Amino acid sequence: MTRTRFHLGLDELKQKLLRMGGLAEQAVDRAIEGYRAHDAEKCRMVFDAEKTINAVEREIDELALDLLAMQQPMATDLRFILAVIKINGDLERVGDQAVNIAQRVLDILELPPAELPFDLPRMAGLAASMIRQALEAFIYGDAELAERVLGMDDDVDRINHEVEKTMRQRITDEPQFARQALDALLIARNLERVADHATNIAEDVIFWVRGADVRHHQFGPE
Amino acid sequence: MTRTRFHLGLDELKQKLLRMGGLAEQAVDRAIEGYRAHDAEKCRMVFDAEKTINAVEREIDELALDLLAMQQPMATDLRFILAVIKINGDLERVGDQAVNIAQRVLDILELPPAELPFDLPRMAGLAASMIRQALEAFIYGDAELAERVLGMDDDVDRINHEVEKTMRQRITDEPQFARQALDALLIARNLERVADHATNIAEDVIFWVRGADVRHHQFGPE
Repeated sequence: MTRTRFHLGLDELKQKLLRMGGLAEQAVDRAIEGYRAHDAEKCRMVFDAEKTINAVEREIDELALDLLAMQQPMATDLRFILAVIKINGDLERVGDQAVNIAQRVLDILELPPAELPFDLPRMAGLAASMIRQALEAFIYGDAELAERVLGMDDDVDRINHEVEKTMRQRITDEPQFARQALDALLIARNLERVADHATNIAEDVIFWVRGADVRHHQFGPE
Repeated sequence: MTRTRFHLGLDELKQKLLRMGGLAEQAVDRAIEGYRAHDAEKCRMVFDAEKTINAVEREIDELALDLLAMQQPMATDLRFILAVIKINGDLERVGDQAVNIAQRVLDILELPPAELPFDLPRMAGLAASMIRQALEAFIYGDAELAERVLGMDDDVDRINHEVEKTMRQRITDEPQFARQALDALLIARNLERVADHATNIAEDVIFWVRGADVRHHQFGPE
């Protein structure tokens, strides 16, 4: 086992993780696109993609294990591999959130149309861009970009609280549309969780880059 | 660095993880106890415990890193350390779920009492016992016990769907109690997520014990 082979392995690990990130982000996009375009087929694509996401997650974990077993990694490589393992878990859960969202969207598509005062695509765009930027921070080892991602989480939380308040009110005022409002409320919560996973990823990037643990210093529970 | 010191480190890692598990389970218990006994103080204890849980999570990750850096671990020790890192992340999220539940319970305690046809303590008891048994499977390296935990997840999912259906109906029928019903629905979802984390832990135990990856073979998204 040469050092070079080890570094090729690290590159492969990074590439696989980026693929994983692309799949997770695409799944969220598709679920939202299903909502925007009233397209149930898009939701079904999310269910299919979940199997691929789970398979890639497994590949990444196995490769990480192989690399750890290959030789005694330097401290910085260790932190990198650990960050990959954690980010990998978060991306898989983003895929799960996309499945949850797609299920709700399918439910909404089957119900009578209700006007929902909630810019779902905008909120989803924010959450997706957090994932994208957290991964970009990971590629470039850019702790400052990762910190900006942490800041964006507050915006998503604010939108989520706003949606929750609005939908609660709507449920009381127009119980005939309670189900649609509840679906919207739950989708907003799922998107908020996607943003939380982006936050976790950003924290792992900072943990890896700075060798310090910034987790939990400023942020509360999911 | 002797092999013995490494093994002492592994023991310490296991002990810390069990402490983490105890804290996470206690947080869920307290949130539910707050609901059962109409005791807001119990909910506030959950918020305080979250800080401890986050600190212990960090300690465990750092110890795991130290152990990985200490010497070239055997494949089975590697898998063990990897399992600890993943279980650690799940337990921290159980703590987050407990915080979410405690917030909902505080909300319910401030509202006019509503009869909610939902045996919350029973569902919580199931979820908590899944966490406990998953950790027991981990202590004893008992893959069969871990598989039984996987089976229990279906029960919790069933209860969750039942609660969701009931509460949706109630929201439509008695909109004046919509807020309480929504809180109950969201608590049930949080408990379902606790059970999902137990499932993740059980899968990690099996992954470690069998050296094979059973994740995603039979179970869908969260």
